[in-house]
Amino acid sequence: MSLSMYQASVPVFVRGLSNLKHVLQKGQAHAKAKNVPDEVMLQTRLIADMLPLAKQVQIATDAAKGCVARLAGVEPIAVPDVEVTFDELQARLDKVIDYVKSFQASQIDGSEDRAIVLKMRSGELNFTGQEYLLGFALPNMFFHITTTYAILREAGAELGKNDYLGNR
Amino acid sequence: MSLSMYQASVPVFVRGLSNLKHVLQKGQAHAKAKNVPDEVMLQTRLIADMLPLAKQVQIATDAAKGCVARLAGVEPIAVPDVEVTFDELQARLDKVIDYVKSFQASQIDGSEDRAIVLKMRSGELNFTGQEYLLGFALPNMFFHITTTYAILREAGAELGKNDYLGNR
Repeated sequence: MSLSMYQASVPVFVRGLSNLKHVLQKGQAHAKAKNVPDEVMLQTRLIADMLPLAKQVQIATDAAKGCVARLAGVEPIAVPDVEVTFDELQARLDKVIDYVKSFQASQIDGSEDRAIVLKMRSGELNFTGQEYLLGFALPNMFFHITTTYAILREAGAELGKNDYLGNR
Repeated sequence: MSLSMYQASVPVFVRGLSNLKHVLQKGQAHAKAKNVPDEVMLQTRLIADMLPLAKQVQIATDAAKGCVARLAGVEPIAVPDVEVTFDELQARLDKVIDYVKSFQASQIDGSEDRAIVLKMRSGELNFTGQEYLLGFALPNMFFHITTTYAILREAGAELGKNDYLGNR
């Protein structure tokens, strides 16, 4: 089977976010065992000027849903950043995973050269579909999943890299 | 242009490792400004039972060189883990980037279904080429680049996510 834009996006995002669900489950169990309230754990940061755990999860999901939608040429669904508990983060992940899975190969295949424009605070970023997927969206999702992992590891959760990679 | 195993591997690894070089340059400048010796900075960890900065860089490069070699069906070059300075880490990155770039599309394209066997401490992992690239090697490289970034951020280096993503 020949690699396609669909295969390099939808299943990779789904796998990453599913692994993030697993990492968060272990983090939630650890916080509960240590009597750390969810609102404290979700606001924990590696360092004061980095984003807290909840935001890391929110951006990881945004990277995934934004990418598949833009590759398919549709507007991504809006998911407001309102989560204050682990259960709410899990619900967000379920919602975004279902959304990503709802895209068909026929919507995404052939998007290699589609013009993608991202409006950032610093200005516009212009990509082809392939550059956007491989040089921006996937690295971005993995950045925020890894940072979530690092915050929970620093907090003492019993996590190993296989929890992140999904080879369990 | 249709996505291929080459395009989803060689340029993505090269870009990730090139961004890691940039992140390390900023980390080196910060350590120098703060009079932190290289051998201290390269042994800094997020938490005592995670790997130090030097090892994060070593594994990121191993993920890249191992993947392109295995997809091409050749034995990866050995690069011993001996670096104790930032300059030595940069030289390692240059060496691995040159090695990754030395692979041609004709060697890697068509490796979607190639049987890949990884011998881990925990046993064998079996993948197709496509699963190995997208579900293991790329997430693994981004994990170790992100963790390098996090170690340097915690140490106070002035880094932002664009340094990691390469949109500079």
